[in-house]
Amino acid sequence: MFPFRVIHQEDVEQLLDMKHVIELVERAYTLKAQKEAALFPMVFHEFSPGVADMDIKSGHLMGADIFGLKLVSWYGENPAKNLPPLVGFVLVLDSRTGVPIGMMGGDAVTLMRTGAAGGIGAKYLARKESENLLLIGSGHLAPFLIMSTLMIMEQIKKVTVINPRSYEKAAHFCTSMKAKLKEKFLSPYQADEEIYQTYLRRIEMVEVVATDQIQTATEEADIIMTATPSRQPIIQKDWIKPGTHLSCVGADMVGKQEIDESIFSSARVFVDDVTQAIHVGETEIPVKKGGFNKNEIIAEIGSVILGQTPGRLSDEDITIFDSTGIALQDIITADYILKQAKAKGLGIVAHL
Amino acid sequence: MFPFRVIHQEDVEQLLDMKHVIELVERAYTLKAQKEAALFPMVFHEFSPGVADMDIKSGHLMGADIFGLKLVSWYGENPAKNLPPLVGFVLVLDSRTGVPIGMMGGDAVTLMRTGAAGGIGAKYLARKESENLLLIGSGHLAPFLIMSTLMIMEQIKKVTVINPRSYEKAAHFCTSMKAKLKEKFLSPYQADEEIYQTYLRRIEMVEVVATDQIQTATEEADIIMTATPSRQPIIQKDWIKPGTHLSCVGADMVGKQEIDESIFSSARVFVDDVTQAIHVGETEIPVKKGGFNKNEIIAEIGSVILGQTPGRLSDEDITIFDSTGIALQDIITADYILKQAKAKGLGIVAHL
Repeated sequence: MFPFRVIHQEDVEQLLDMKHVIELVERAYTLKAQKEAALFPMVFHEFSPGVADMDIKSGHLMGADIFGLKLVSWYGENPAKNLPPLVGFVLVLDSRTGVPIGMMGGDAVTLMRTGAAGGIGAKYLARKESENLLLIGSGHLAPFLIMSTLMIMEQIKKVTVINPRSYEKAAHFCTSMKAKLKEKFLSPYQADEEIYQTYLRRIEMVEVVATDQIQTATEEADIIMTATPSRQPIIQKDWIKPGTHLSCVGADMVGKQEIDESIFSSARVFVDDVTQAIHVGETEIPVKKGGFNKNEIIAEIGSVILGQTPGRLSDEDITIFDSTGIALQDIITADYILKQAKAKGLGIVAHL
Repeated sequence: MFPFRVIHQEDVEQLLDMKHVIELVERAYTLKAQKEAALFPMVFHEFSPGVADMDIKSGHLMGADIFGLKLVSWYGENPAKNLPPLVGFVLVLDSRTGVPIGMMGGDAVTLMRTGAAGGIGAKYLARKESENLLLIGSGHLAPFLIMSTLMIMEQIKKVTVINPRSYEKAAHFCTSMKAKLKEKFLSPYQADEEIYQTYLRRIEMVEVVATDQIQTATEEADIIMTATPSRQPIIQKDWIKPGTHLSCVGADMVGKQEIDESIFSSARVFVDDVTQAIHVGETEIPVKKGGFNKNEIIAEIGSVILGQTPGRLSDEDITIFDSTGIALQDIITADYILKQAKAKGLGIVAHL
């Protein structure tokens, strides 16, 4: 018999803060680059094509003595039942003994680790002096991508938001964005006045605008993040100025695409996991159409974080980080939550 | 947010009874035969070859509106740490919404559903008047296989137990076996005097003997069940008399083998799942050595339960049921436990 801890959703949200998650996701990437972490094969099942599916992503972080899995169900008809379309969980086990440690719902973990990933792409691949962030997509992920970028990139002066389907939604999102960022992300830092004030200032000082002028916004952007469920390119190659960085986080299954595939052949391309990127990431379509070879991927991002592979070589480079989302991000974040919860006596414990 | 129930080990054991588990496992088999259930691809990872590995088996029972997974870790060095070598869990989700329902440790579920499977093999493939059960293996599974067979096969008069490595272990097991069966399996039936007395009588009337005479015991047996971790055949073809049924439950990974592969070519062979059987079951070696073709497998057992495929054709047939253990057995059993636990207010509930 062993204790197994399950964390309530509200506690997961309370225990996570973006600064820590950025560190955790970087650690997952670097462990992978050091061969101290590995992904297991993904299980994917379509219950009903276009209506409901699920996947099980799993992996091992030897360097952190944990392994685990994330299961995510997508049920497109759930909202009609007052349920979220995406539901799932993350479960962590001890890789020294195989014993299950604990679990939690997957929602908050996924949003935080995906937001962190977008920012990490910018941290290692964008120009340090980047001022203009363009965000394509105004959905659940948007505040997480903006917050991680504001925390990481000190010079951001303007965030432009585009919802390719609805200018109104983007505008509405921008109206409440600053309040949302403060409410969602700042409370963990209240005990540290300096950090709190730094992040508060960045939120308050940044200009936030919605637009429907995709070309103009792209031409202005130093950093572009894409987080939509699109299946056709939104960003065209001609619009992108030299020196731009793109963090593509929306594409996570076969057929998804957010940027023109021809951008790949003239960019320095980095991914979180080569296998996943060419199968389900933004890299899938360029490789399938033949204009980009998977051997042209410069490296997995962990190698850049470790300093083993240079990120951008000049201020003129266009850089891409294809973040498909790997189980290692979820497992290391969930493990952190479980450790915090144990220390604070949060969650419930069963004896399995 | 949704409620997620985790069942303590002691409650799992208390909520399960062999009669119900036999029904549940039969239902899993028949749903599979009716294409109302399907297995997803298995994930297998070796942390350290011969020392530690894990697998994730998952699947969907459309006919029961559930899907789920079982993760089992095997850590050969755990006993030195006072931990069991096998640990894991079973987790169930609602296949109408994708929402996780609950989970429990995998140990009790695995033992019960595996014991049930051996008995079900006998129920549909052995001669009704079978009197002699030969059990190869005196480990954790032994009492579960004996109990399910005693419940199902009314004429059993003698159980012979062989531990191929140690006669003493088999003899020791037999000394305490009847007390163990009564203690482990009868309490759920105390409210039903007739069933309780029937099972009690079968335990008390049966003769139990340990032996090291494998050939003689095989020659005498009507039903043989194998439940060892052997990697070489224990039962030779020449020893088996016409009309014998074999339920092979030990082989569940590449390289395991308990009976002479040449038995297959002269037997009517049934399996729980064709894919698993030829990859990791008792059927693996006969197929790999070429003496038996996978197309010679008569059917999956569910088809026999449904009456779509005849089991044995005559009292002279040798029949084999290769039970590799499929996730559907675990998921349907775990779902039953969760429903019982909910009704009785057992376990703990987290809000994911």
